[in-house]
Amino acid sequence: MHILVTNDDGIDSPGIYALVHALRSVGKVSVVAPDRQQSAVGHALTVSSPLRATKIRRDGEFFGYAINGTPADCVKIGICALLEEKADLLVSGINHGSNTSKNILYSGTVSAATEGMIMGLPSIAVSIDSLDYRTDCTVAAEYAARIARQYADLNIPADTILNVNAPALPKEQIKGFRVTRQGTSGWEDAYECRKDPMGREYFWLSGQYNSIDTDIDSDEGAMKAGYVSVTPVRYQLTNEDIRSRLRITE
Amino acid sequence: MHILVTNDDGIDSPGIYALVHALRSVGKVSVVAPDRQQSAVGHALTVSSPLRATKIRRDGEFFGYAINGTPADCVKIGICALLEEKADLLVSGINHGSNTSKNILYSGTVSAATEGMIMGLPSIAVSIDSLDYRTDCTVAAEYAARIARQYADLNIPADTILNVNAPALPKEQIKGFRVTRQGTSGWEDAYECRKDPMGREYFWLSGQYNSIDTDIDSDEGAMKAGYVSVTPVRYQLTNEDIRSRLRITE
Repeated sequence: MHILVTNDDGIDSPGIYALVHALRSVGKVSVVAPDRQQSAVGHALTVSSPLRATKIRRDGEFFGYAINGTPADCVKIGICALLEEKADLLVSGINHGSNTSKNILYSGTVSAATEGMIMGLPSIAVSIDSLDYRTDCTVAAEYAARIARQYADLNIPADTILNVNAPALPKEQIKGFRVTRQGTSGWEDAYECRKDPMGREYFWLSGQYNSIDTDIDSDEGAMKAGYVSVTPVRYQLTNEDIRSRLRITE
Repeated sequence: MHILVTNDDGIDSPGIYALVHALRSVGKVSVVAPDRQQSAVGHALTVSSPLRATKIRRDGEFFGYAINGTPADCVKIGICALLEEKADLLVSGINHGSNTSKNILYSGTVSAATEGMIMGLPSIAVSIDSLDYRTDCTVAAEYAARIARQYADLNIPADTILNVNAPALPKEQIKGFRVTRQGTSGWEDAYECRKDPMGREYFWLSGQYNSIDTDIDSDEGAMKAGYVSVTPVRYQLTNEDIRSRLRITE
């Protein structure tokens, strides 16, 4: 099995390193990842400027390609131009910070998996519930490898990816996998208005995350309860209930 | 009714101008839009740099705020920091170029509507099937206004937006509204590898769009057949069929 690995924290992050290490027990791993942190880029593609691929070494050997673009760029250019052999699976992560509930819509990590799906690959996004880069990702990476190993037997359809969120807990405190649905928690947004040294106003996005999903059938609820949450996320977006009854007057 | 209007082609585009003009017959219109073209940004948010809001005049009067950010930024900052009165509806567009099938996932226009929905507003994305900025958007804007006028009666749930795609045809050739589902057409991607004057390689995303949706119940098929396509797009992404049967081995 040939696994393409990417992320949105950048090729230097500890999360991708732990993931690559664990996936090497499953198959051959190729890395194509952003050259810097790309959080909250969503499914952006770089169409107005050229992309460059830089070979990165780590521990004295070739580790992967760093791209001056978004996670979705990395997946596209990896598959179309950089990989010498066809990939069989895409794994994106491990992201520092969970990607649950409404955050899925902003997540570069999840969008990389979405792009993998668009390009015809089975795809998994993996995040850990800690923003601290020092958090050990070994256990989350092992869980990701377990999913990668059995992916073919899970019968996931071509329009669906798996979005995995692991608690930042030691191995013995993790309760195992739990299949979940996307939760409904979201942000209470705010912008801080400041003045620059010239007296001109500018704004910073701030705000607070309201975690309301305590149900362990939700992605966030399961993760907070100590499970590795696995959500099948689908990109056929039509609301069929509404479609069948919607009548618009001319 | 107070309508927030944004787009991803930038506040100077003819599409947003036509839309604002048509929506003024429906209610009060406020404009908060990117200061430049933002295509293919998807649902990106600006979190690592400050945003600025510049007041723009057009035809001798205040037209709206230009933001140095993405369409999703414009919606968030508009609602949180710039609008003096609460908005009742968000309309994003009119985008030059359709946003059908898999393109929905990359579209800044659609993502602005998604952000509107996240912020609790009924939201509509509007695109016209022509990349040419000289294409007249008056008819598409009139159709958008008709939807805006009856939105409250359509009973669209809070997790769903309307994605509207209009053909670039004269009024008399348009067959009316058609409620559709997201099609499955997509891109055959390719990267062109070139060398810069220093001899270093760089890549441009190129590729070709394969239009395979001819069914008039699909967004693209309906639009190509002369209908104004209206797709209810939902952002609860869980694949419930898979969720209920997925078993992952520890």
